[in-house]
Amino acid sequence: MNIALDMMGGDFAPVEAVKGIELYLQNNSSPEKLLLIGDESAIKELLTRYNVASDQITIIHASQVIGMHEHPTKALKEKQQSSIAIGFYLLASGKADAFISAGNTGAMMVGALFSIKAIEGVLRPTIGAFLPREDGQLGLLVDVGLNADCKPENLSQFAVLGSLFAQHILNYDLPRIGLINLGEEEGKGNILTQAAYPILKENTQINFIGNVEGRDLLTDKAEVMVCEGFTGNALLKFAESIYDLVQRRGINDEHFNRFNFEIYGGVPVLGVNKPVIIGHGISHATAYKNMILMAIKMLEKDLIGKIKSSFMLPV
Amino acid sequence: MNIALDMMGGDFAPVEAVKGIELYLQNNSSPEKLLLIGDESAIKELLTRYNVASDQITIIHASQVIGMHEHPTKALKEKQQSSIAIGFYLLASGKADAFISAGNTGAMMVGALFSIKAIEGVLRPTIGAFLPREDGQLGLLVDVGLNADCKPENLSQFAVLGSLFAQHILNYDLPRIGLINLGEEEGKGNILTQAAYPILKENTQINFIGNVEGRDLLTDKAEVMVCEGFTGNALLKFAESIYDLVQRRGINDEHFNRFNFEIYGGVPVLGVNKPVIIGHGISHATAYKNMILMAIKMLEKDLIGKIKSSFMLPV
Repeated sequence: MNIALDMMGGDFAPVEAVKGIELYLQNNSSPEKLLLIGDESAIKELLTRYNVASDQITIIHASQVIGMHEHPTKALKEKQQSSIAIGFYLLASGKADAFISAGNTGAMMVGALFSIKAIEGVLRPTIGAFLPREDGQLGLLVDVGLNADCKPENLSQFAVLGSLFAQHILNYDLPRIGLINLGEEEGKGNILTQAAYPILKENTQINFIGNVEGRDLLTDKAEVMVCEGFTGNALLKFAESIYDLVQRRGINDEHFNRFNFEIYGGVPVLGVNKPVIIGHGISHATAYKNMILMAIKMLEKDLIGKIKSSFMLPV
Repeated sequence: MNIALDMMGGDFAPVEAVKGIELYLQNNSSPEKLLLIGDESAIKELLTRYNVASDQITIIHASQVIGMHEHPTKALKEKQQSSIAIGFYLLASGKADAFISAGNTGAMMVGALFSIKAIEGVLRPTIGAFLPREDGQLGLLVDVGLNADCKPENLSQFAVLGSLFAQHILNYDLPRIGLINLGEEEGKGNILTQAAYPILKENTQINFIGNVEGRDLLTDKAEVMVCEGFTGNALLKFAESIYDLVQRRGINDEHFNRFNFEIYGGVPVLGVNKPVIIGHGISHATAYKNMILMAIKMLEKDLIGKIKSSFMLPV
């Protein structure tokens, strides 16, 4: 399998990407090929500096970089020699099996939707975020910003996508799905959640347990918590700020340390035809290593195949 | 001024309400009359037990109590001798100038909307929550659940209501108003926030500073952060759960201790014709004392009058 890696994305590229690859190669013996996309001379120089030598590595030169604040569609169109554009070219042409980047999130999303496209039957692909639960496990919050406005059917599909991810990648036998809502009782909610509730309830592909509230995010009440991307984004960013706050306050606590979203590497785009993982802009070495491991796991478990089967329309 | 207090609301009523009154009377010399509504014999017995004797106190007997989980409209209709129903009767008839309760939130809202009603021009009254900022001050998040679905104009009015509260009660000279959104740039957002942005920008009654994100909630970026009640409710409940988590983890930190929403007493219903303050169900003595102080401040500053002037239609 070929894992394509954008070496130029994120605030600490390409040095942290190289260090992440070093970390990955030191601790893993899987035979995957790593396609490192970016400025060839810079990457070579860093590989030498950090003594990273492996026949699993191939460098693919990219003469351009899409900046973190560039307009996604415009940048992808105008910078066809950028690391992100080349990554999606490799993915779409079958030369890569998965693509990882900590670069411009918007460009990664646009690239995923327009090159490898949504899986047939998936109305809206989505991105989730990991929730550090008190029991030491991880939960999944989905959507966290890709879909700011949703229809009830979107939430039901996010639930299916999140459930399959939680089952095959987070190793939950029968993930419980909760709908984020204003209150626990059925019938509570805004127009969207009131309409989504019966659809989730009737969805036989998921183990829907009903409404959950903001206070339940870090508990083991449900493995997957579903909401539209506006609320999910606000919750995620608030949680991230709690971690920053904990750091600033000099608190060293095992659970709060797990609010460091970097340790999870990145978040998968769910509902597109190949594994695409988007890292945090501030990704360091561990994040890159973990994103490579997640991509491998998604391929090994054939998560995409399982999602495709799940959304296959009856003929 | 007459402050009416529901002695029967909340998980620890009426004992914590009595202790709160004791605390208030010990530390304040203002001449307000306190109208204690509830079971007369129970209240008398507790006043004796805690040695609370003051000619500022009048007990008003209420033979019924609305439970925390009763249906608001039904309960208010059927239990006209309940402490909440009597409180609103006193308020509407002018016998009380403010009403405080830690009881059934829904019944408090319905009571406020149907007895003293929304101020003319206010499309939807709202409730906010205090945000413990890192600089030691308080911010205001509004709406936190009363209005799960909003129109852009509602957000603009919440901003005005929140701004007046922040100015006159939280003592900010020129409160900055932020719109909670997916990103900082103008143009970002869901349908609601994209439509609300220009309305907020053109609103000359507020000092609108643009979009804020989930990560900004505890910062001094804006004194008032505005959103619809669905997102606000999820954020508030998540923040409350962080406090519980901090407690369970045995962390004692000055800032995180301020996540204890009880210390703020309660939240005001903004946009109705008299001061109404709703306490948390788990209110203890300090919360009651602080709710009395907030009611007095709202009356002294004539917050309602200022809101009325602000919403006065041009003739």
